[in-house]
Amino acid sequence: MGEETVRAPRRRDVLRMIGLAAGGAAMYQAMSALGVAQGSPMRGEPQLAEAPRGASVLILGAGLAGMTAAYELRRAGYTVQVLEYNDRPGGRNWSLRGGDRYTELGGATQECRFDPGLYFNPGPWRIPYHHSNLLGYCKRLGVALEPFIQINYNSYLHSLKAFGGKPQRYRCIDADYRGMVAELLAKSARHRALDAPLTPEDREKLLESLRETGALDASYRYVRGNTSSDVRGYAKDPGGGSSGKPVPSQPIGAHELLESGLWQTLGSAYDEQYLFQTTLFQPVGGMGRIGEAFGRALEGLIRYQARVTRIQQDDHGVTAHYEDLRQPGTTLQARADWCLCTIPLSVLHQIPMNVGRPMAAAIAAVPYAPTIKIGLQFKRRFWEQDEAIYGGTTYTDQSIYGISYPCCDYFSDGKGVLLGAYTFGEPALEFTALSPAQRVREAVRQGALIHPQYPEEFDNGIAVAWNRVPFVMGCYGMWSDEVRKRHYDDLCRIDGRIALAGEHASYLPAWQEGAITSALDAITRLARRAHEEADA
Amino acid sequence: MGEETVRAPRRRDVLRMIGLAAGGAAMYQAMSALGVAQGSPMRGEPQLAEAPRGASVLILGAGLAGMTAAYELRRAGYTVQVLEYNDRPGGRNWSLRGGDRYTELGGATQECRFDPGLYFNPGPWRIPYHHSNLLGYCKRLGVALEPFIQINYNSYLHSLKAFGGKPQRYRCIDADYRGMVAELLAKSARHRALDAPLTPEDREKLLESLRETGALDASYRYVRGNTSSDVRGYAKDPGGGSSGKPVPSQPIGAHELLESGLWQTLGSAYDEQYLFQTTLFQPVGGMGRIGEAFGRALEGLIRYQARVTRIQQDDHGVTAHYEDLRQPGTTLQARADWCLCTIPLSVLHQIPMNVGRPMAAAIAAVPYAPTIKIGLQFKRRFWEQDEAIYGGTTYTDQSIYGISYPCCDYFSDGKGVLLGAYTFGEPALEFTALSPAQRVREAVRQGALIHPQYPEEFDNGIAVAWNRVPFVMGCYGMWSDEVRKRHYDDLCRIDGRIALAGEHASYLPAWQEGAITSALDAITRLARRAHEEADA
Repeated sequence: MGEETVRAPRRRDVLRMIGLAAGGAAMYQAMSALGVAQGSPMRGEPQLAEAPRGASVLILGAGLAGMTAAYELRRAGYTVQVLEYNDRPGGRNWSLRGGDRYTELGGATQECRFDPGLYFNPGPWRIPYHHSNLLGYCKRLGVALEPFIQINYNSYLHSLKAFGGKPQRYRCIDADYRGMVAELLAKSARHRALDAPLTPEDREKLLESLRETGALDASYRYVRGNTSSDVRGYAKDPGGGSSGKPVPSQPIGAHELLESGLWQTLGSAYDEQYLFQTTLFQPVGGMGRIGEAFGRALEGLIRYQARVTRIQQDDHGVTAHYEDLRQPGTTLQARADWCLCTIPLSVLHQIPMNVGRPMAAAIAAVPYAPTIKIGLQFKRRFWEQDEAIYGGTTYTDQSIYGISYPCCDYFSDGKGVLLGAYTFGEPALEFTALSPAQRVREAVRQGALIHPQYPEEFDNGIAVAWNRVPFVMGCYGMWSDEVRKRHYDDLCRIDGRIALAGEHASYLPAWQEGAITSALDAITRLARRAHEEADA
Repeated sequence: MGEETVRAPRRRDVLRMIGLAAGGAAMYQAMSALGVAQGSPMRGEPQLAEAPRGASVLILGAGLAGMTAAYELRRAGYTVQVLEYNDRPGGRNWSLRGGDRYTELGGATQECRFDPGLYFNPGPWRIPYHHSNLLGYCKRLGVALEPFIQINYNSYLHSLKAFGGKPQRYRCIDADYRGMVAELLAKSARHRALDAPLTPEDREKLLESLRETGALDASYRYVRGNTSSDVRGYAKDPGGGSSGKPVPSQPIGAHELLESGLWQTLGSAYDEQYLFQTTLFQPVGGMGRIGEAFGRALEGLIRYQARVTRIQQDDHGVTAHYEDLRQPGTTLQARADWCLCTIPLSVLHQIPMNVGRPMAAAIAAVPYAPTIKIGLQFKRRFWEQDEAIYGGTTYTDQSIYGISYPCCDYFSDGKGVLLGAYTFGEPALEFTALSPAQRVREAVRQGALIHPQYPEEFDNGIAVAWNRVPFVMGCYGMWSDEVRKRHYDDLCRIDGRIALAGEHASYLPAWQEGAITSALDAITRLARRAHEEADA
């Protein structure tokens, strides 16, 4: 794969691409889809009324939506059965560890060769503090959490086209951008060129605030000195004794800074969005710990390696036909009064199911986002040892999009696994077209332009291209404004005895909290139906 | 203590106060003293040449400076002896835990009544990622570290005078301030009112960057909508299913925002300074774990409860006279070829020592900062359970200055300890004048105006007023620009056979890295002297 074929997955380019593909007003939903939005309204344990005598629910899919539903419905007294395609619980909640084998569509099989204790999350990898339902289940299920570091001021911002390709520290670009903005606005304010309804007192406060937040000097200039170095860092750090005097660093000028484009991943443009604000969390030992804990809690309720081939409802219940993948060709049936289907729409729209036209049309309407993630094991944690980078992400305009450092085992000796690529949109499709080994090689090649230690320290890697993941064939439901307006309510509305749930049935696409809240919303409505029927 | 007597220790007020007290150019050093600056140049293990045969060093003080020196000098082959006033190693590196007793000057004794596993750091409490020497010793000594959360976007900014005294979420003030600045500057840029050497292309990029970093709409306005709510948070968070539609929140207007003064602790004005940037760390179990680990490593070298009363050098060595506090009135002597004295200047200037006028003048020239810290135990972690605040700090214009939430044991049941006050300057002196019980009561009274759960959930507390801490009688050396210019080099220069070290002999006052780098710098020079003498 040459540099020509894999294009840079700049976030704005991706947004623009989605905007063009889906129509003009798609930008907001695209931002959601890329993980740049939102929160969750629910909290604590839902209180479902006790189940009507003998009521049963068939749940399709043992991802977080399906298992949340099974957990709560069982607690309320429903007879619950879950069918799951994989031989493990969790779905996209998934961690790959040494010894795991993974076969993608097309047949390529990878064996994960990470050292014991190291892992890589192909799917979700961080939990915002406001995703309170997910956090609540972690607590109830005993999943230990630790802080996830989103912003690291000592990581890099990198562009092949800026600063001769030399990575810049996040803190320098961040400080210099703020300093530039503050200096420019202070100039306007002092020359009374502000077109705003501010009182003279407001203007004085504005100037004072700009000096403080922009690290300006007494004359409102952002210049080399201790004030700016206290934010962007020093050329020589202050220390102790006779040799301790600090040397300030030189800020980057406005023209060079703007031209570099490195401000594109700064601050509230990205890392400080509500979804990424401190304090984020991750499960100790990998995101998959949540699915595994749910699976243990639902021991005996989940039938694994069950491929659903047909979903049939009638006046009295719902029957799912499925193949037992351990005995290929066999067809079995499961039946219950009600069905909660959490199968991704990308798969579901290929499964015959007798629902009305509105739900069927909604199921067919939502395209799935292509993304790839690549985990790379290195012989040592050189990013910490050589570069003092502990967690967080380096961003680049190459098609790997970024390099994310592990937020655990800081300062440890031995090997380490980092996220070597997390790519969206067209570049993800180009990565997907490569063999797994080629994807890993390309991620190492690109990463070496940021970390020269890469070739020497690289050990092994594994690449998950979501379009080739058999159980979802895409990463998440990519809603546009128009599609949501036309189809979202139909997707969520119960059709006869069938309700749908999953991140695709939420305003938090791609987020686990979206899957969980959609399941809680759906079973609340489904339970109401069950009671209405029982009371009738 | 009434509201009138304890005034608000706003950071800027403190800076201003220090600026006035110490003369006009003191602001930068005051900022350092308040912990708003800097880094450290050294890294890895220092390589001292092997000690001359039989060379010995007497070290006064078993804080981090003294113990670093002892550790390295012993490693190089010197005969080392350490005298320490306290009955424990660490000095200001110190954690209070349940069962600990602490007696301040004046005789008031407090017993810490925290639950097992809970602690409070009266002194240092966070380690910047660039304090590489301190981090290096943590690794060598086996001190486990975990992330310290400085900024929490869901904590509060609070002023008695703004928003009717109602605390505002950090994320709202932060987003709204940036949005306001971006909108104002975008207006100037679009009306070509910018007084700056920007090309037309620069201006286009500036506008694009302002829209992204300021969360502006397509017309460059910062207004209610999903774009601003994606940064400041929603009125109703997005969720799943039929009930998942989000409701945007209403930004605060420019006038109200500026008038509130809540921008004073925002962003690069404070929390995003180089010293506070991610990823910061803390030792698991309390900062005191570092001093304890050093103490174990130096087993047998440290004589505890030894109060130095006189330091006398001659042509051949240095003798320290000291009282064994276990046998009051006794006077003992310790002698070595050389002496490294890490006793705080506030104490040292009261101890007779035959050094030349320049060093003596320097010792007398540096005032010590008064600060107080109060640890409060609550019956439950209501800040997490009720308010979704995990670590970080809430700032207020009351004299407690802030409330810092524990960065460990997240989501745990049972009790929790937070930092209920961290006060500087004149308000710290006013707090100091109270009895320990009164200080705790006042911290609870003020905190209740932010967290109404305080009175119900409060369990017990402990208050350390540094001006009354017997072994330092102040918090740290508070250098002004002038005093540093006149005296710093004299303080650091070896006088005969005596060298000084400690945070007071550094450009990182109050920081542990300052103490350690000052010790490394001093012993490097002292060892050179020892070799010169041996070679002569």
